Amino acid sequence: MTSGMTGAVEEPSGAAVLRRMLGDDIVLIEREKMLPYCRDWHGDAVSSAVAVIRPRSTDQVAAAVKACRALGFSIVPQGGNTGLVLGAIPDAPERQVVLSLERMNRIRKIDADDFSAVVEAGCILSELKDAVSEKGMFFPLALGAQGSCRIGGNVSTNAGGVNVLRYGMTRELVLGLEVVLPDGSILEGLSTLRKDNRGIDLKQLFIGAEGTLGIITAVSIKLTPYPDQAATALLGLASLEDAIKLYRRARRDCCDLMSAFEFMPPLAFTLAQEAISDLPIPISTEYPAYVLMEISGSGLVDVDDLMQRFLEGVLEEGLVLDGTIAASQTQARNLWLIREGINEGQAKRGAHMRTDISVPLSQLASFVDEAERAVSEALPGAVSVSYGHVGDGNVHLNVLPPSGSTPEERIQLIYKAKSVVNEVLDRYAGSISAEHGIGRLKRPDFDARLPETSRKLLTALKHAVDPELIMNPGCQLRF
Amino acid sequence: MTSGMTGAVEEPSGAAVLRRMLGDDIVLIEREKMLPYCRDWHGDAVSSAVAVIRPRSTDQVAAAVKACRALGFSIVPQGGNTGLVLGAIPDAPERQVVLSLERMNRIRKIDADDFSAVVEAGCILSELKDAVSEKGMFFPLALGAQGSCRIGGNVSTNAGGVNVLRYGMTRELVLGLEVVLPDGSILEGLSTLRKDNRGIDLKQLFIGAEGTLGIITAVSIKLTPYPDQAATALLGLASLEDAIKLYRRARRDCCDLMSAFEFMPPLAFTLAQEAISDLPIPISTEYPAYVLMEISGSGLVDVDDLMQRFLEGVLEEGLVLDGTIAASQTQARNLWLIREGINEGQAKRGAHMRTDISVPLSQLASFVDEAERAVSEALPGAVSVSYGHVGDGNVHLNVLPPSGSTPEERIQLIYKAKSVVNEVLDRYAGSISAEHGIGRLKRPDFDARLPETSRKLLTALKHAVDPELIMNPGCQLRF
Repeated sequence: MTSGMTGAVEEPSGAAVLRRMLGDDIVLIEREKMLPYCRDWHGDAVSSAVAVIRPRSTDQVAAAVKACRALGFSIVPQGGNTGLVLGAIPDAPERQVVLSLERMNRIRKIDADDFSAVVEAGCILSELKDAVSEKGMFFPLALGAQGSCRIGGNVSTNAGGVNVLRYGMTRELVLGLEVVLPDGSILEGLSTLRKDNRGIDLKQLFIGAEGTLGIITAVSIKLTPYPDQAATALLGLASLEDAIKLYRRARRDCCDLMSAFEFMPPLAFTLAQEAISDLPIPISTEYPAYVLMEISGSGLVDVDDLMQRFLEGVLEEGLVLDGTIAASQTQARNLWLIREGINEGQAKRGAHMRTDISVPLSQLASFVDEAERAVSEALPGAVSVSYGHVGDGNVHLNVLPPSGSTPEERIQLIYKAKSVVNEVLDRYAGSISAEHGIGRLKRPDFDARLPETSRKLLTALKHAVDPELIMNPGCQLRF
Repeated sequence: MTSGMTGAVEEPSGAAVLRRMLGDDIVLIEREKMLPYCRDWHGDAVSSAVAVIRPRSTDQVAAAVKACRALGFSIVPQGGNTGLVLGAIPDAPERQVVLSLERMNRIRKIDADDFSAVVEAGCILSELKDAVSEKGMFFPLALGAQGSCRIGGNVSTNAGGVNVLRYGMTRELVLGLEVVLPDGSILEGLSTLRKDNRGIDLKQLFIGAEGTLGIITAVSIKLTPYPDQAATALLGLASLEDAIKLYRRARRDCCDLMSAFEFMPPLAFTLAQEAISDLPIPISTEYPAYVLMEISGSGLVDVDDLMQRFLEGVLEEGLVLDGTIAASQTQARNLWLIREGINEGQAKRGAHMRTDISVPLSQLASFVDEAERAVSEALPGAVSVSYGHVGDGNVHLNVLPPSGSTPEERIQLIYKAKSVVNEVLDRYAGSISAEHGIGRLKRPDFDARLPETSRKLLTALKHAVDPELIMNPGCQLRF
């Protein structure tokens, strides 16, 4: 198509061809416009892409996949771009296209009588939660990013959050999926059946696959009655070990009505107040360990009474040293702001090491103890902050460099801290990713620990479902 | 190896070679000894096999798989042989080997502090439940066959049962799996981590695959605190529709403490008493619909009080017409015997049509109404019995031929009843298998309804994981 004549017509770029095939409205190719889709929200990674495709329908997604295949581009699916492991950020700008689901944000159906809803992948989680709550229903997935993350991303990454101990990971909230496969065909599985045991459950493949096997375009989800009662308490304890004892006790005493059990160190208050300056702290900040606990329910269950009786018992025994129960929704919200402020407070202190670790619950306290000790021996002056969803055996053991560290010192410290923590973690046979996924950030650590049998099976699966390897290459594994 | 000489040595059969390779103790080849492994417990199907292999360890399973491959035999894995869809019964006796997991029945570990256990596939479900309850823990899977079914079979078939509405299908109770793959390699995944989000979750492939992708040899499972309180009630209602209204109400009022909600028609009492002659029926048998409901919990929750208050409200409103609450464990057990007696009572009336249907909960009443009407129009004299796990949208709509029907008449009626019911089911976009799986029995019905995209994907998966197609051929699909 090139021409040597005067007024030569330049061969159109792949991006331009893609745009012509799919339409100007669908395809962005300007670098500045693509930028928000090509950097992660921490700002740690900035990249670019051939194009950003923003389809409005499942058929447009299928057309986009076929066009990309024809042109030899690979596809990085993206939801709200709030992931923490670079799973939705391109890393080969010259041959990758970002496919954003943000325009597929309709709620197709909410059926309160059926305890289910059908929503498109681009639905923002908090909007979905609000819409179902208007019908008296509840979608339990709850995480810090819920104002911007999108349900398709939550499903693709099998997101966790603060309510996992009662309701499970996202996987357990999914009834059905609609998926555009790497050949552009559409797997139609948006059933709302609660029980459907027709053999191998294909949707499980795509949950947690981070877009490496196909593009989730819509999801049918389980709903539960809205828990219109909640009792929230902040408790001071002598140690993480006591917090785990308390969790076991609460699992038995409060049964399946406990919806959150978060662990925090005293430093949490400092960090939260660095992020939110006028945040009230309604408890002495001098205990070695804190738990933020929530019991919730609906109907004839009295969760306030349950919390009261539970705390009376454990205070009397001395397992809990001090505690405050939120007397209003505002007070409860403020307690949660302490928990949520930890992240922002750490971010304000500059680049630091973040982890997302799980070990068996019975070994969590000794793991944290050992890992924090190893960090302080190897990196004097660095500060460990361990907090998280203790009931699930999931801890975010983060390491903050000494204040005044240079950017280079921080990078070195982060690198070193990770290897120190991972060395302890491997001895505990823990997971390097309890809830955040693998993406591109954790691929080397994942790869290094992958047993040969798992690798062979993953490779066989990848080649079976995506033989041209066009779906999110570089994410999870390199094949 | 054959010889024409006097005293000719006959070429040893494949079965004999297998026996020599794996050992006399491991391999049965006598027809009578193999019989119990080659017929289903209903006695509907009787077959045979080349051999029955009964390994005692994972390594022996792996060796058996390699030997079968080398000899060109395919493998039908079997647990307790209590399945209802012929998934574990050979159908090609000349080339299939049954691999029974019955000897791998050790409990490897129960860790109450970790809310987990690790058990071998051949553990009998009730023995496992008893063992964990001795440590104050509870494994929620509960089904009629629990005295003989084995956990590996439960996982392979993703078994359901009466507690699904609170605890989920077996899939949701599994933390990890050890699987012998079709090439004889061992996928080691017996982690007890509650949260582990390292990408694609390989274990999901094998749950519900009914042994078509590999052999589950051990399982790590979630435990919960033992619910030492239970309130059980039998309620009389005006209709199935009211039962579903009651379910919705109970979900809200009793929150996550409701553990069972079973629907039965008045005929249930007759059938149960035909099976268990002196079974007490503590309620008038003249209501059109009955619900057996259980609330359970541990610790500080008062489930008796909750049941009392719930029933007071719904009786006052007229949603429930009559009810009895079990005053003792014996009374509760007797109420459950009514529910469990339905199956045996039907069996005593001779061959009949059984289904395992799910439809969206909001359409269950109209589905049952329509399907029962269609049956009575098409098959005058036949009796429909619809009962089951209504809270999950799961109904067993069975059809009993008129008494005095000949075996041939029964076969014809079963065939006709199935097509009448399935015709209605397809209009409701329901599932032909809510909890029993596909096996060989439902393969034709599954196959006929399988969308092309799903078929392509299942075929690609099968060839990727089991390229020689040796695992349970004929089960779920023919490839």
